[in-house]
Amino acid sequence: MMKKYRKDDRISYTLGTTLTMELLNKKIEYVNRIYIHSKLDRNDTYYKMIDICKNNNIEVIESDKTINNLSDKDNCYMIGVFNKFEERLDDKNHIVLVNPSNMGNLGTIIRSSIGFGINNLVIIKPGVDIFDPKVIRSSMGAIFNINFKYYDSFSDYQKEFSKRDFFPFMLKAKTNLKDKVINGNYSLIFGNEASGLDDSYLNVGTPLIIKHNKTIDSLNLDNAVSIALYEFTKDEIE
Amino acid sequence: MMKKYRKDDRISYTLGTTLTMELLNKKIEYVNRIYIHSKLDRNDTYYKMIDICKNNNIEVIESDKTINNLSDKDNCYMIGVFNKFEERLDDKNHIVLVNPSNMGNLGTIIRSSIGFGINNLVIIKPGVDIFDPKVIRSSMGAIFNINFKYYDSFSDYQKEFSKRDFFPFMLKAKTNLKDKVINGNYSLIFGNEASGLDDSYLNVGTPLIIKHNKTIDSLNLDNAVSIALYEFTKDEIE
Repeated sequence: MMKKYRKDDRISYTLGTTLTMELLNKKIEYVNRIYIHSKLDRNDTYYKMIDICKNNNIEVIESDKTINNLSDKDNCYMIGVFNKFEERLDDKNHIVLVNPSNMGNLGTIIRSSIGFGINNLVIIKPGVDIFDPKVIRSSMGAIFNINFKYYDSFSDYQKEFSKRDFFPFMLKAKTNLKDKVINGNYSLIFGNEASGLDDSYLNVGTPLIIKHNKTIDSLNLDNAVSIALYEFTKDEIE
Repeated sequence: MMKKYRKDDRISYTLGTTLTMELLNKKIEYVNRIYIHSKLDRNDTYYKMIDICKNNNIEVIESDKTINNLSDKDNCYMIGVFNKFEERLDDKNHIVLVNPSNMGNLGTIIRSSIGFGINNLVIIKPGVDIFDPKVIRSSMGAIFNINFKYYDSFSDYQKEFSKRDFFPFMLKAKTNLKDKVINGNYSLIFGNEASGLDDSYLNVGTPLIIKHNKTIDSLNLDNAVSIALYEFTKDEIE
């Protein structure tokens, strides 16, 4: 029987029908097999799934035991197993997360990011595992719409994408987010949830601050990223 | 022994030292008693707590059993029990949440709200319980800095605060958030995480939309609120 997810596994899985259908629609080339529960409704979505799997030679296995084993929730009736993948970053705008540690935040950030049209995500190690089923769930499938890549260090990333504007978000920054100037393609850079970016980033590109008053130490990471995404893209999205 | 929190209880509690100190500093008039664990460090914070409690006639009880019973986490060594309270709203700007259902979101929203200087929160019932220890924890104590009030219906609230501008956030709105016009005091209104605001709000004040593309259904509630807070306050916060 399939074991619960561990970071070193070569495969991961989607918990639930909606996520699994998103996986089939967006990343079918990586799908390995589908598990279904005996209680799954044999409705239109079910037949659509069966069709896709038949046409693509993907095995569909009914196993309540496997589903109960992999899912903590009672109402999960479909699981999609897929091989992990890494997509090429393109040269457009990027979100860069330095050492993110919270799975729920990462999923939400991916969702906001593609919502605002930024389809490239960089994670500087160490960082949370983007393939953890919890991240996949909190991204509501958005993970299958974004290009992402892990780097060992920020300088490795910076060397590869040197011809762009870097905007690290820091409480010590001098420039207010609302006064940013967009010239070409850019990378929005955010630090760890608890510690933020270290002072070395004051020398990277144009550090920006999202001003708030002193009653709170900082904004939640996903809120800060969403605010930045909004401000950087608000004149582009129709 | 004290029982785990239930919504109908007249009291609630703060889990952990930081939250409990925030409770003592901000809402001492409602504090009932303090529980500590035998493993609690007898450091400066401890002596400060003991001082405050002595000066205010608050009982401090060492009980590992109570703490283990109330907290799911191993490293919680201080709990503050307090009587629930309701603070008067003032006539400045408000955040209005219609039927919010997620505890973590509510805590994060409270934190962002006071960070951007909006210190009044309205919840239209049914809505998540602001005194649930999970909300208190996710607000990181910000709940002790905000005025909040529950209303049975939006029209009850609207009658009481009729002389202000209402901005409901809706996907069907015609006006883009970035084109908003601020005249006087305002209320920013958000619907439930899953269902949003119903169409009746199209007739309330000036509905606004945070534009994003179609790859996602909607933004996370706390992200939407943070973006709105940022846009409405960005010219005021120094």
